[in-house]
Amino acid sequence: MNIRTLYWDKGKLKILDQQLLPSRTTYISCETVESAREAIKELKVRGAPAIGIAAAYAMVIGAQNSAAETSEGLIGDLRDTAEHLKTARPTAVNLSWAADRLMEKALGNREKPVRAIKELLLEEAHRIAEEDAETCRKISEAGARLLKDADTVLTHCNAGALATGGTGTALGVIYAAARQKRIRVFACETRPLLQGARLTSWELLENGIDTTLICDNTAGWVMKQGMVSAVIVGADRVAPNADAANKIGSYSLAVLAGYHRLPFYVCAPLSSFDFSIKSGGEIPIEERSEEEIKRFAGIQTAPAHVRAYSPAFDIIPAGLITALVTEEGVIFPPFKENIEKIRQGRGH
Amino acid sequence: MNIRTLYWDKGKLKILDQQLLPSRTTYISCETVESAREAIKELKVRGAPAIGIAAAYAMVIGAQNSAAETSEGLIGDLRDTAEHLKTARPTAVNLSWAADRLMEKALGNREKPVRAIKELLLEEAHRIAEEDAETCRKISEAGARLLKDADTVLTHCNAGALATGGTGTALGVIYAAARQKRIRVFACETRPLLQGARLTSWELLENGIDTTLICDNTAGWVMKQGMVSAVIVGADRVAPNADAANKIGSYSLAVLAGYHRLPFYVCAPLSSFDFSIKSGGEIPIEERSEEEIKRFAGIQTAPAHVRAYSPAFDIIPAGLITALVTEEGVIFPPFKENIEKIRQGRGH
Repeated sequence: MNIRTLYWDKGKLKILDQQLLPSRTTYISCETVESAREAIKELKVRGAPAIGIAAAYAMVIGAQNSAAETSEGLIGDLRDTAEHLKTARPTAVNLSWAADRLMEKALGNREKPVRAIKELLLEEAHRIAEEDAETCRKISEAGARLLKDADTVLTHCNAGALATGGTGTALGVIYAAARQKRIRVFACETRPLLQGARLTSWELLENGIDTTLICDNTAGWVMKQGMVSAVIVGADRVAPNADAANKIGSYSLAVLAGYHRLPFYVCAPLSSFDFSIKSGGEIPIEERSEEEIKRFAGIQTAPAHVRAYSPAFDIIPAGLITALVTEEGVIFPPFKENIEKIRQGRGH
Repeated sequence: MNIRTLYWDKGKLKILDQQLLPSRTTYISCETVESAREAIKELKVRGAPAIGIAAAYAMVIGAQNSAAETSEGLIGDLRDTAEHLKTARPTAVNLSWAADRLMEKALGNREKPVRAIKELLLEEAHRIAEEDAETCRKISEAGARLLKDADTVLTHCNAGALATGGTGTALGVIYAAARQKRIRVFACETRPLLQGARLTSWELLENGIDTTLICDNTAGWVMKQGMVSAVIVGADRVAPNADAANKIGSYSLAVLAGYHRLPFYVCAPLSSFDFSIKSGGEIPIEERSEEEIKRFAGIQTAPAHVRAYSPAFDIIPAGLITALVTEEGVIFPPFKENIEKIRQGRGH
């Protein structure tokens, strides 16, 4: 895997600017909370796990830049930083999850000197990044067993190395399977921001995977023609009943997969599970600007005065999901009971 | 209706260049068969009925430019012209239908002087254009009765004034319904060439219709949220069993409509029915260039070396169609019998 999505470098957070891929491979350097938040908001870094890692390092930057001389002052600053970061994007739960985890680390060490707390926060952010790489590895291995030799997998958006601190979730499964089996991929281009075209097909080719790009509207037709064996996507938030929020279009793909009797797998780390809600109906769905649909690279592609509706995500109902792939293994129905077992096993 | 898609002007075929919409309203002037064929091939004029009209006028241009001094010579030239035109695009049957109709007109009048035949051909082309406008009117009125007050219709690609010689088929139904009822529209943007964004939303707004543009991958999600009452599309070719070829993505929409128990209507003139085949499996599907997906306005939006699959059409199986709307009225199942009745009534 030769893709470095984001990393910490001498007090700065380096982020591969995914808005410029595949034309340019440029890293931006974040030294302020605001620049890191902006990178998340503007989708320079995206994908639930990667957003979590970026948020963790943004908390470290917030601590670094805090002028507080007492731990209470630092914790106050961190609380502000966390609240500000959480407003960058509403759907992926990893953003809150990571900010809260850093917050807890600070609170648990409030007796220590400010400098020590700052060091512990950096360690914790590194730990989140490392854990995510390890989580990807486990998800990939668990999911790879679901695929057979000569399978063709259809995927949507990007749940790959570019979306995580490791080899990816959905694409991680593909990489792991492809080490032992012949696996081909259909990548849906994923309008409006073309993460499938720009990111997934680029990443898959970089890793030697046989990839065919299609428009989102072609997914049903390739299924109909018997060209697809399974659909595998990531998730931005999973409810305890297995309803999963993922990139807009995932819901349609799940209906189409069900109609064609194809398995539909959702890959996500447990950090994307939200145990504070009951079902997908409670997941807030981010609406993006109309301009993302109506303009492309500065060119007007629709009348300037037409209304556009641009939800960034939709909810895949649990009933359309064949299995969830997590670092604790593959979860089959009954989802509610089986997710609860894992939650209790991990002491969530 | 203040849109003039194509018209005959003093020996030339004027075509509104739809590749430049909505930014610019520019007419190209065709004086050779090749320029008219190129306009069809490059989608400057598109939509099955409009392609038919363009082909008819292209045949007139072929006759105009023929140096033949005998009717046999003219007929030979016309035969070459027809064969050449038919290769421009394979799926819409109206192209062959119109070229053949002009050919028959010439053959039926082979005893007449060359100049008289040329005049008859121009009259026949005008007749095809006028008939299409009348056909649109009949389809629109028949289809409008299928819609209720406060309905929201989802449509795909462009089956409007820009696709016909009249007010359109699917959009004609919307215009007719909107004269008596409150009708709102979701227009799918229709990748890769964005006919929904560029043409349909422009045309609907020009005619005062309440329109919301969505990405193709959002169709299922708006259905799921109860925001859609019916799906209405056009067709490029309809088989006698009602299988219908239409813009890629139509198949997925039909599956999604069925899943959400929404009616799915296909609007097409009888000139788009192909009685030489039995089912949709025999309809040739045009594959477009990979570059239409991989580049936009000269900008690379996917890795240059990734493979792309770009069928321009798919086939909606009869079983997913609620009704066909034609100039002879609305056809419900059993389709085969009911289509056959209409065919016999018209003496096809």
